[in-house]
Amino acid sequence: MYRTHTCGELRIEHAGTQVALSGWVQRSRQFGGMTFIDLRDRYGITQLVFNMETDPDLCKQANDLGREYVIQVKGSVRERSNKNPNLPTGDIEIETTELNVLNKSDVPPFTIEAETDGGDDLRMRYRYLDLRRPSVQQNIILRHRLAQEARKFLCDNNFLEIETPFLIKSTPEGARDFVVPSRMNAGQFYALPQSPQTFKQLLMVSGYDRYFQIVRCFRDEDLRADRQPEFTQIDCEMSFVDQDDVLNMFENLLKHLFKFVMGKDLGDVERMSYADAMRLYGIDKPDTRFGMTFTELNDLAQNKGFKIFDAAELVVGICAEGCAGYSRKQLNALTDWVKRPQIGAKGLVYVKYNEDGSFKSSVDKFYNQEDLKAWADKMGAKPGDLLLVLSGATEKVRKQLGQLRLHMGSELGLRKADEFKALWVLNFPLLEWDEDSERWFACHHPFTRPQKGFEQIENWGDIKADAYDLVLNGNEIAGGSIRIHERDLQEKVFDLLGMSKEESESKFGFLMGAFEYGAPPHGGIAFGFDRLCAIFGGAESIRDFIAFPKNNSGRDTMIDAPSPIDDEQYTELHIQPGAELVE
Amino acid sequence: MYRTHTCGELRIEHAGTQVALSGWVQRSRQFGGMTFIDLRDRYGITQLVFNMETDPDLCKQANDLGREYVIQVKGSVRERSNKNPNLPTGDIEIETTELNVLNKSDVPPFTIEAETDGGDDLRMRYRYLDLRRPSVQQNIILRHRLAQEARKFLCDNNFLEIETPFLIKSTPEGARDFVVPSRMNAGQFYALPQSPQTFKQLLMVSGYDRYFQIVRCFRDEDLRADRQPEFTQIDCEMSFVDQDDVLNMFENLLKHLFKFVMGKDLGDVERMSYADAMRLYGIDKPDTRFGMTFTELNDLAQNKGFKIFDAAELVVGICAEGCAGYSRKQLNALTDWVKRPQIGAKGLVYVKYNEDGSFKSSVDKFYNQEDLKAWADKMGAKPGDLLLVLSGATEKVRKQLGQLRLHMGSELGLRKADEFKALWVLNFPLLEWDEDSERWFACHHPFTRPQKGFEQIENWGDIKADAYDLVLNGNEIAGGSIRIHERDLQEKVFDLLGMSKEESESKFGFLMGAFEYGAPPHGGIAFGFDRLCAIFGGAESIRDFIAFPKNNSGRDTMIDAPSPIDDEQYTELHIQPGAELVE
Repeated sequence: MYRTHTCGELRIEHAGTQVALSGWVQRSRQFGGMTFIDLRDRYGITQLVFNMETDPDLCKQANDLGREYVIQVKGSVRERSNKNPNLPTGDIEIETTELNVLNKSDVPPFTIEAETDGGDDLRMRYRYLDLRRPSVQQNIILRHRLAQEARKFLCDNNFLEIETPFLIKSTPEGARDFVVPSRMNAGQFYALPQSPQTFKQLLMVSGYDRYFQIVRCFRDEDLRADRQPEFTQIDCEMSFVDQDDVLNMFENLLKHLFKFVMGKDLGDVERMSYADAMRLYGIDKPDTRFGMTFTELNDLAQNKGFKIFDAAELVVGICAEGCAGYSRKQLNALTDWVKRPQIGAKGLVYVKYNEDGSFKSSVDKFYNQEDLKAWADKMGAKPGDLLLVLSGATEKVRKQLGQLRLHMGSELGLRKADEFKALWVLNFPLLEWDEDSERWFACHHPFTRPQKGFEQIENWGDIKADAYDLVLNGNEIAGGSIRIHERDLQEKVFDLLGMSKEESESKFGFLMGAFEYGAPPHGGIAFGFDRLCAIFGGAESIRDFIAFPKNNSGRDTMIDAPSPIDDEQYTELHIQPGAELVE
Repeated sequence: MYRTHTCGELRIEHAGTQVALSGWVQRSRQFGGMTFIDLRDRYGITQLVFNMETDPDLCKQANDLGREYVIQVKGSVRERSNKNPNLPTGDIEIETTELNVLNKSDVPPFTIEAETDGGDDLRMRYRYLDLRRPSVQQNIILRHRLAQEARKFLCDNNFLEIETPFLIKSTPEGARDFVVPSRMNAGQFYALPQSPQTFKQLLMVSGYDRYFQIVRCFRDEDLRADRQPEFTQIDCEMSFVDQDDVLNMFENLLKHLFKFVMGKDLGDVERMSYADAMRLYGIDKPDTRFGMTFTELNDLAQNKGFKIFDAAELVVGICAEGCAGYSRKQLNALTDWVKRPQIGAKGLVYVKYNEDGSFKSSVDKFYNQEDLKAWADKMGAKPGDLLLVLSGATEKVRKQLGQLRLHMGSELGLRKADEFKALWVLNFPLLEWDEDSERWFACHHPFTRPQKGFEQIENWGDIKADAYDLVLNGNEIAGGSIRIHERDLQEKVFDLLGMSKEESESKFGFLMGAFEYGAPPHGGIAFGFDRLCAIFGGAESIRDFIAFPKNNSGRDTMIDAPSPIDDEQYTELHIQPGAELVE
């Protein structure tokens, strides 16, 4: 037996007990003829004491131990004379009588501390050491707890965890599939699932009523900073539900996670239409931890001689509370910020609502004090506030002002990492027009239910869907919809999407077939689990919440994957290297 | 809102309540001016009543409903005059006042009953209907419960659920990998994991102490009857453990599952060496629900003039209790059974221990009554028993007699589906010689720890490993080992396996590197979850415990996968169709 207790377990009431502990040498100090070693494992740290006077041989052995050595010790627990109130085991230490080195350690290539000196590449190559750092370990444990609590909630609500296949059929649409050549079926390929969408719908057709799975999904997309080719979803589906049933269930799931993982009360989850989100926040996933909502100023700002505003489809502003004192330098910096290519605004109009009630603006030439007072009143501003106004084409200017709003929120400290605000965004459009391919795409996915009466709507862009996103602190953490459960409606929507009958039959014939045998009304949702973990952990990047993530080229540099395969494997799989590789 | 209650929920105390129910039409009967419909969902069946006298329109609508139609009804709960004690809802029925057809159903291609008239192929093609059958639904729910209880036990024992990657590196060794061409890394491939073995070992190096995952694994093998290309493991690893620690933990897991899923007490889990299992049962996964262990008879049966026995390396028998009365026909059938090519014995010697104490055998020419009495005594036989004896080369004859033993066990009803007996098999050989490739292979895998002192053993086949299998009713349900945690020992074992330094470094350099930074002693186990579910469900085949299984050609006939991919996909993935496909 390697240990009787873990390194986080011993307390003052164990004093006098003989124990065995195993773990890693965290650090070692020599002090007045004594050697003190902090022994670490996942559960905590326990202090070991070696005495040069009473056992010089053992003490010398202890002095030879390096950092990260793995050791086993035996000894008796005793009360410390110098207690450490910051450590759960800080009341005791081990008077060591036996020491066994279980494994040595080379000097790690970076320090195993919360703040390490290792760069990203080095830490990824030695991920097994990076994973020892307490900050990363806390993230991985947080992920474990979130998974268990999510499961508990779902099981308690009669959801069944049902595994769906990973080797499925390639139906390229939107994102690219990862594919797997079949050895037994020459010239044919499996695809890895982008989500278990069709399978969970089939489970509803099969009568399983409530399904969930915490499941890996795969998308062969060009990787942006915080995207992974494989990612995890909490994937759920329910039968005999309308939209409200789904929203209620999953805001309760989120509240449960807050309560039992964070010990926090999430509070109410607001519901907002997509149109309102765009109108008030310029984005479909508003950060509602702070206000600073948009005010449209066309009626007040146009036809006063300022050509730029007059020519604009939309003049719209936000009120930055208490910022009237911004210096010229600060205002210039803001102007430069919105003019960056990532934002793309042509300029920024500001209006200072001075403490004395007067106004100072960058457009004083066109607007008198009364005009500006009217703006301020409409925006609910008070003396001391700063109005920031943009203009242009509606969609574009909303997006720009939305980004400026988030920027100001950050600047003013309104986006607190330990404050949480969730929101449902509803009534999404069913379709969006893609300029490049000149066709309509499904905003959510082609199985999403159009809202009633959609056939009467002339402009397809105005058709709304029974789709919903759950937004937390400005991040989309979940998205879902009520699904189509009738063959004829599904055919109509495939038709809207420009899919021929042959194509829809070959790709999704099995699903439309299933709809002919008593498919119940159903709907569902999927949470992006990596992102959810990162937000709960108060972090921006998902990478440190994944045990073995890939880098931006989709590589695992630790195991060095992907890698070439043997000629024999090519042959068996009925494939050859691409022409560009063999020339 | 589609329903106020499920179809399994209403009881006598709900009488008088207004309710809404949704579900499938299970069956419909007309009787004395009334129509009765059994409405079904996952939770149960509720009887609906329609009255031609009081509401002829509604009753006519009800009469038009077909099997598997999806409907919603409203009405009031009332006590039945004719109660059904076999149904939890059998005390009540719904006096229906409103009926809405939510979806129609075509006539299913086979009956949705426990015993269906659908063949295997048809049921797989319409798996979403097959999954409606109550027997299959019970299996899927059993699987859900086993997963939840396994997780609960492991979490309660401080195991962390940590997800490991699915896109890893191909290291062909033993079974073939499924591979995934990388679009972003031309000419390179990911592999799908055959198990998370190296990652879970790295997690131990990282100090996570106890890991588990219920995880999909992939093996591109030629499929035997009950193999699937993707299968699920309960995968576990622990640090600072010796073999006993692991055995104790996981026999407790199995006991927990029995207690909380089956409501049964599993009883003690015996421990037996591989050598004893082979000697006493002729197999490394003995079914210990019954005895009938082997007795070796060389000392008694050789040198009595029977040349076949004299020439044999091993003469060995079993005692079939109470079978002395077997007829000539029955004995001939047994002889034919062992002579089938699947078994391959040359013949079968029997000895009847008659009730009067006399013996009658097929070798009376060579053995007198006293000789046969000595056999019987050694085998612990009593009057009325039948001794069955085989001879030949040790390994072969043990295997043959092992199969005969199982056959006799089945014949005699000793392998009861509702009786469970678990067993640890220990002290496996480290290596096995492969005649075809003329090299040593790892019996378990190359990370398995050889037992102490292995360097002194001359015959490599005699080296034992710290490996263990958990056997339940003659099925291997889990296997594992204590692992190597030192670089030099791992190198030695790779060397034994005939792997060059370059090869081992390129395949497993990351793991051996990790061993240099303080790797703790560790070991683990993996349960075959599909098989475990099948045994708990008292079934032979794993297929009905997997929601969407593949057939023996690795195809999903419902979605029609695998399937061809587009030319564009080939190009993007830097591959071409195999030469044999384009000629």
